Amino acid sequence: MRNWDPLYSLQSYRRVRRTGLLRASPPIVLAAGFLCLILLGTLLLWLPISGLGPISLFQAFFMATSAVTVTGLTIIDPAVALSQFGQIVLITLVQLGGLGFVTFAVISAITLGHRMSLQHQALALVAFNQTSVSKIRGTAFLVFKTSIAIEAIAAVVLTLWWWRDLPLLTASYRAVFHTIAAFNNAGFSLFSSSLAQFVDDPVTVLTISSLIILGGIGFPVLGDIGNKKRWVTLLPYTKVILLGTLTLNLVGFVSIWLLESNNAGTLGALSLPGQALAAWMQSVTSRTAGFTTIDITQLHDTSTLLIIMLMFIGGGSLSTASGIKIGTFIVLLAAVYSYIFHKKEVVLLKRSISPDTVQKSLALVLVTGALAFGSVLLMTIFEKAPFISILFEVVSALSTTGMSRDLTPHLSLPSQALLTVLMFVGRLGPLTLVYSLATRKRSRVRYPEADFQVG
Amino acid sequence: MRNWDPLYSLQSYRRVRRTGLLRASPPIVLAAGFLCLILLGTLLLWLPISGLGPISLFQAFFMATSAVTVTGLTIIDPAVALSQFGQIVLITLVQLGGLGFVTFAVISAITLGHRMSLQHQALALVAFNQTSVSKIRGTAFLVFKTSIAIEAIAAVVLTLWWWRDLPLLTASYRAVFHTIAAFNNAGFSLFSSSLAQFVDDPVTVLTISSLIILGGIGFPVLGDIGNKKRWVTLLPYTKVILLGTLTLNLVGFVSIWLLESNNAGTLGALSLPGQALAAWMQSVTSRTAGFTTIDITQLHDTSTLLIIMLMFIGGGSLSTASGIKIGTFIVLLAAVYSYIFHKKEVVLLKRSISPDTVQKSLALVLVTGALAFGSVLLMTIFEKAPFISILFEVVSALSTTGMSRDLTPHLSLPSQALLTVLMFVGRLGPLTLVYSLATRKRSRVRYPEADFQVG
Ligand SMILES: [K+]
Ligand SMILES: [K+]
Repeated sequence: MRNWDPLYSLQSYRRVRRTGLLRASPPIVLAAGFLCLILLGTLLLWLPISGLGPISLFQAFFMATSAVTVTGLTIIDPAVALSQFGQIVLITLVQLGGLGFVTFAVISAITLGHRMSLQHQALALVAFNQTSVSKIRGTAFLVFKTSIAIEAIAAVVLTLWWWRDLPLLTASYRAVFHTIAAFNNAGFSLFSSSLAQFVDDPVTVLTISSLIILGGIGFPVLGDIGNKKRWVTLLPYTKVILLGTLTLNLVGFVSIWLLESNNAGTLGALSLPGQALAAWMQSVTSRTAGFTTIDITQLHDTSTLLIIMLMFIGGGSLSTASGIKIGTFIVLLAAVYSYIFHKKEVVLLKRSISPDTVQKSLALVLVTGALAFGSVLLMTIFEKAPFISILFEVVSALSTTGMSRDLTPHLSLPSQALLTVLMFVGRLGPLTLVYSLATRKRSRVRYPEADFQVG
Repeated sequence: MRNWDPLYSLQSYRRVRRTGLLRASPPIVLAAGFLCLILLGTLLLWLPISGLGPISLFQAFFMATSAVTVTGLTIIDPAVALSQFGQIVLITLVQLGGLGFVTFAVISAITLGHRMSLQHQALALVAFNQTSVSKIRGTAFLVFKTSIAIEAIAAVVLTLWWWRDLPLLTASYRAVFHTIAAFNNAGFSLFSSSLAQFVDDPVTVLTISSLIILGGIGFPVLGDIGNKKRWVTLLPYTKVILLGTLTLNLVGFVSIWLLESNNAGTLGALSLPGQALAAWMQSVTSRTAGFTTIDITQLHDTSTLLIIMLMFIGGGSLSTASGIKIGTFIVLLAAVYSYIFHKKEVVLLKRSISPDTVQKSLALVLVTGALAFGSVLLMTIFEKAPFISILFEVVSALSTTGMSRDLTPHLSLPSQALLTVLMFVGRLGPLTLVYSLATRKRSRVRYPEADFQVG
């Protein structure tokens, strides 16, 4: 079970690196790959054939960043400002950036018949947390096949369903686009008001929300379910994530339904089943897909705060979702619980969690929180918008959720630039970033312990 | 140096408790004592002679809670709604609740010539983090003498300074009241606009801000300085807290000055030295005294956010200030740093910090953050006020700062009741509270370790 631990994988990676064939660290290679993809996407979206009107270089860069980081924040409306070519570029960037970058690198190395280079191996070790190189190929293929199969089924369902009102070609184009966007947790839509027209359409809402959950729960979980099939044999990690996902989605669902049922601007006008579908969609999409079927600028402040929390937590590790990740959140809850109740260990479903994992979660949540706080602080200098809207857009970008209280398109250039940085940092993981920037020397000096008063 | 560790003290306390003479745990005794003091204060403030007009039972309860928890939030203005008797009751509650409760219990036990009871001993072990009972008496006396001496000097200075414009009796009454309020970090004032009239008066501002810092830095630090007098011989803890306090105050000072220097509603109208004094006062008072010399409803959102952060961090442990405490904040920074840079230990000024202390800090910041988040969530249900104002009042109550964006007096009853709970919980320490509520059984079961994916 060591295979779910990136630190251990990194140690394996270091063994690989010691051969001398690999220079850069995997996080840096990943970051560089993302950056290349963003720049390529920027150029493609900047081409005159991508837009129905002129698109500035910065607009193209913002949209490419939003696509590659599977965020979905927009400063131009893909439904009306992009040509079909531009839309295809956008959704391809989403698929590459989401499913994406690493899987493709590994798969292509395999399908080309070459032995994977050591560099690819090390990348894959980090990306899939596998310690054995031979297992990576199987895992990479499994991820790829499963993902494509899920997307194909959903695209067929949506095509058939939408075909009732639309020509087959239009229906299938829209189905494929929204399937890719949903599975990759990128909230881009071919409609200016996102999925509002489907607010009480059960087939569309349930298909899209299932795609979001499957894409966002994390490949280790999907892989484990694929291997085991029975609950009792699942890894503790898988069980915890499944239960946590269910809990968060249900809490969001019930809270949003209760808080908004009388709000004429959101759920108030809908039938009871329609309210249920809309509340469910809004709960699921907040972690961290970003589609909307209701007008989120009209949400009650309480619901908005809840959604900010759901966005901050996000999806499963190694998924198309971002945020601090549900595993991190659960470890922190368990750590607090174990401290309060004087347990010697942090325990989850009768398995103890290592202090290193707890410390990692702590660092992650504090660094992410500090980034959000610092960014909000900066943006309040540039912008006159209400504080809650600024907080919402910042957390939406940092968690690569992409929901917007209609503020992002109207922000000043420095704020929009800040959002691109947050999307990039949010997708690569604040921790990965600081990790890769850090020197790796371990101090040989031992210090005497000092007791230190806290609280 | 074990004497700064409450957990260790609690173990000593358990040894005391094993004698069988003590039933309740110290946190519960402390909480009960606070509650009694609040109820007594409520009755006194409810008396017709306390008010210049009628005061409701809830108003009396709110003011008593605010005083005993040294917060300073008000729903009636002590300057115009309380008689001199009521004001004296209020400031007495502040002195008892701040300096206060525990010191007095110990001191009175000693001065009455009795041997301290085991109950008093255990209480004092927790309150002063002393492991040796014989050392407690010295410490308790030292704390008491030092505090009274500091208050006396400041009261004389302010009396002499204010005597220029006022009769001696009025000047000394005001001086004593504000001295006690400032040293105990309770932002009550005899003026409706707090200390606004002294905004550019260097003697008043510097005296009050010195009192706030001395009261809020923590008795362990004052005691260590009193014993050692030279920098090199100070405990690492003392050095860290001194440096941290200086840093936070300077960061707040410079940021507020820069952000507000052009704001006509706050610093804009003042001379350059006046701006410096006002920015300094606002920075110092935010951790967590609560006096104001400028109109904080007019502050820029950026400054407001910074102040919210300063309130959340608060002062030193075992002081008249609250918040998560500067020691907790510094330990968390050090823990994140040590993780990012792959250190084996958390190190501060060449001393390592135990994993237990780190975990304690983590629990404290997460519980406090969760309390603040949950309270804001609840209050957004009851109130229509802007989100940032609600956040401000909640953090102000929870950190027992007592600054207000003029929202607290206009809140609904449930919200005001929530604020009293937050003040109480904030003063006793979220951790102490959950600690005392928890069962104390240690699990004998050992669980296998599971690796767990986070981030
Ligand atoms: K997204
Ligand atoms: K206060």
